[in-house]
Amino acid sequence: MQEKKIPYKIYLEESEMPDSWYNLRADMKNKPAPLINPGTGKPLTAEELSPIFCEELVAQELDDTTPFIKIPDEILSFYRMYRPSPLVRAYCLEKKLQTPAKIYYKFEGNNTSGSHKLNSAIAQAYYAQKQGLKGVTTETGAGQWGTALSMACSYFDLDLKVFMVKVSYEQKPFRREVMRTYGASVVPSPSETTEIGKKILAEHPGTTGSLGCAISEAVEVATKNPGYRYVLGSVLNQVLLHQSVIGLETKAALDKYGIKPDVIIGCAGGGSNLGGLIAPFMGEKLKGTADYRIVAVEPASCPSFTRGTFAYDFCDTGMICPLAKMYTLGSSFIPSANHAGGLRFHGMSTILSQLYHDGYMEAVSVEQTSVFEAAEQFARIEGILPAPESSHAIRVAIDEALKCKETGEEKTIVFGLTGTGYFDLVAYEQYNDGVMTDTIPTDEDIAASIAKLPKVE
Amino acid sequence: MQEKKIPYKIYLEESEMPDSWYNLRADMKNKPAPLINPGTGKPLTAEELSPIFCEELVAQELDDTTPFIKIPDEILSFYRMYRPSPLVRAYCLEKKLQTPAKIYYKFEGNNTSGSHKLNSAIAQAYYAQKQGLKGVTTETGAGQWGTALSMACSYFDLDLKVFMVKVSYEQKPFRREVMRTYGASVVPSPSETTEIGKKILAEHPGTTGSLGCAISEAVEVATKNPGYRYVLGSVLNQVLLHQSVIGLETKAALDKYGIKPDVIIGCAGGGSNLGGLIAPFMGEKLKGTADYRIVAVEPASCPSFTRGTFAYDFCDTGMICPLAKMYTLGSSFIPSANHAGGLRFHGMSTILSQLYHDGYMEAVSVEQTSVFEAAEQFARIEGILPAPESSHAIRVAIDEALKCKETGEEKTIVFGLTGTGYFDLVAYEQYNDGVMTDTIPTDEDIAASIAKLPKVE
Repeated sequence: MQEKKIPYKIYLEESEMPDSWYNLRADMKNKPAPLINPGTGKPLTAEELSPIFCEELVAQELDDTTPFIKIPDEILSFYRMYRPSPLVRAYCLEKKLQTPAKIYYKFEGNNTSGSHKLNSAIAQAYYAQKQGLKGVTTETGAGQWGTALSMACSYFDLDLKVFMVKVSYEQKPFRREVMRTYGASVVPSPSETTEIGKKILAEHPGTTGSLGCAISEAVEVATKNPGYRYVLGSVLNQVLLHQSVIGLETKAALDKYGIKPDVIIGCAGGGSNLGGLIAPFMGEKLKGTADYRIVAVEPASCPSFTRGTFAYDFCDTGMICPLAKMYTLGSSFIPSANHAGGLRFHGMSTILSQLYHDGYMEAVSVEQTSVFEAAEQFARIEGILPAPESSHAIRVAIDEALKCKETGEEKTIVFGLTGTGYFDLVAYEQYNDGVMTDTIPTDEDIAASIAKLPKVE
Repeated sequence: MQEKKIPYKIYLEESEMPDSWYNLRADMKNKPAPLINPGTGKPLTAEELSPIFCEELVAQELDDTTPFIKIPDEILSFYRMYRPSPLVRAYCLEKKLQTPAKIYYKFEGNNTSGSHKLNSAIAQAYYAQKQGLKGVTTETGAGQWGTALSMACSYFDLDLKVFMVKVSYEQKPFRREVMRTYGASVVPSPSETTEIGKKILAEHPGTTGSLGCAISEAVEVATKNPGYRYVLGSVLNQVLLHQSVIGLETKAALDKYGIKPDVIIGCAGGGSNLGGLIAPFMGEKLKGTADYRIVAVEPASCPSFTRGTFAYDFCDTGMICPLAKMYTLGSSFIPSANHAGGLRFHGMSTILSQLYHDGYMEAVSVEQTSVFEAAEQFARIEGILPAPESSHAIRVAIDEALKCKETGEEKTIVFGLTGTGYFDLVAYEQYNDGVMTDTIPTDEDIAASIAKLPKVE
């Protein structure tokens, strides 16, 4: 292909945007293991899932054979308000690093939710509305997912109840206020509005809540109120399906300029961004039509890929959700309190876990002070103040570019910049004040929570 | 021209971006009146201005004859990191309003500073670096300008001292933290670091500061320290010049699709955004080659166009800056304390004042509760959480679209969406809680401050 001048930002035309999501599972020989009902010990059926999730989303969750699933027009209309997201050539960063590497990042932060979460939120809200539901419930910790879902529900006139971990509710009043502006009702969790909330408050009067507890409250409200379902922003197969729009756009933009990446880097918590970003590239790798290095970056304080084990485990700390076969630190593992930002999940998407297990991906863990160092460097050079989560990928992209500087290799590096850090300034303040610390779990910590894994087969 | 399908977002190609700023003054028959030195009563000379401002910026400030000024490559490189900004067709808003009007907005919020201020900040930082300066000083109130300038100075390795009005410094710690992340030193004003600050603190020990005082401190530091100059983010001719990039891109995007706007709407505080947005359209209007309705929207609590007088006045409440001939409420006018967001300036750009005086523009004032009502409606439909300032323009754009619904006219409405409201959530919270109020100054209030205008000629 003829070489074209590559602009700072590659924007696809609207007509070049993907009109289907890509279901990577269809091209996997070793399919991800099914979710298991902890009560029966058997794979969950559509019937068992449909009181909790919307019907169409249940179908997407279980479908591991259809490679492309058409994006409904109503979702495409919404996507067009904030997508395509730019694929940015980091010319200024390359110059500053004096690296021969070519660095690109797919920037998902140009929307009010501030992250890629909106890609799945709008899809889940659409299917809920299509099913004639009144509303949905969810939990949120840091608030990215809650914000995205509040935007999506407001667009489709759906009621939304968000259970926000109490400590975040109090410490992040602005996140809460964005959700309220979009019409969501935001309840600090644990709350007196649910049976499980009342029980927890009675047992632990001063608790500031946890994601596990917020999930339990959201599921209770969804299953007890006719016309409601529960929705989740990461880990699930359906979420990775919706997020494939990130990777499809990235690949289309690269193809347009005849660029083939050598390394693709993404941060990984539950896997929603990484799974979406790499989907079409991994598809080619699975089919043997192309090869790429694919690198998952996780926090050293919550290293499920690099120090976890591949086994069935509960998806939530409350142990009320299904069992999934994944890389996990054990559902009782809690990252150190000094851990800033997201990527705190003890497990990992079953799709990514299977691929990592089969050797199709690498993983690396990084400490948060070095992550914030990269974040600040990136902000000062490329202008964008990145989310702490996204900055894990920045750290490794810079490290790879610096390796190229040593070796002289002109590698093409692509990484996912999942979002902005406008609501994470407490963490930036800690870093600016020099009081941010790192904590790496000991082998004993991890062994202790892994020892509590449920027994399956 | 053949009609093309208009996408949700029109992005210019990099090659279609303007490479010169447009100096509207060159095409004005009645030039804006010159700045006057309050000491001598005579027009300010380049010599008098150069201890305060960079040389090249002084030249731009005084140049009212050169129509196009080339944008230096270094600035173009930075522009390409966050520009072109999208011109968005508000299809979803049109549908919700059921209006035959076609609504477009030029969205300047897709950068970390969150507003159009970056367009001038990067230019001013560039000229400071080119002159070999060590750094610059400025003041900031709400923090948009300070944030933009901190990004610009970090890019050009310039030192930056920001005097931030103390009440904002304390109430907006996150804005402060963004500036620190970009390496700026942020000082609450009044401070013990300047003579004027010490004097004010001695006289008013409990003061929470004011913009006027912060300006005085910034100017003092700039003039007393070799290698420093003072920079300002609005009102000045040079700022409107740099902001013309907004209007030039808007016009290029519209021309590309053969669209001719009927009405162009922008919010107006000091005039930086409005002056930039309308520049090329006003240029055509002045030459008689096209006609447009051009509407300035100002807050009812600070209505300089609609209720001020056209006269020479101080640009700052501290009365240390030059005199400018402009629409003004009097430099002693202070908007009611319940006023949220920016657009609090008592005066208006001399360029826009002259044009308004000569009948080339309309102006309208709106109350803040109706502004936040429009902001919320816009956020829920178009996804973007707008800045309170920008929402003044949204209010009037929606009103115009609703008029079209009544009359059946298919007008094309273009408005400037200057930025995002991510750091304005205290104001949104007041609105969400139903405790936001409106205050309109009485005729007596305005007459009292206008009575204190300086005597010139």
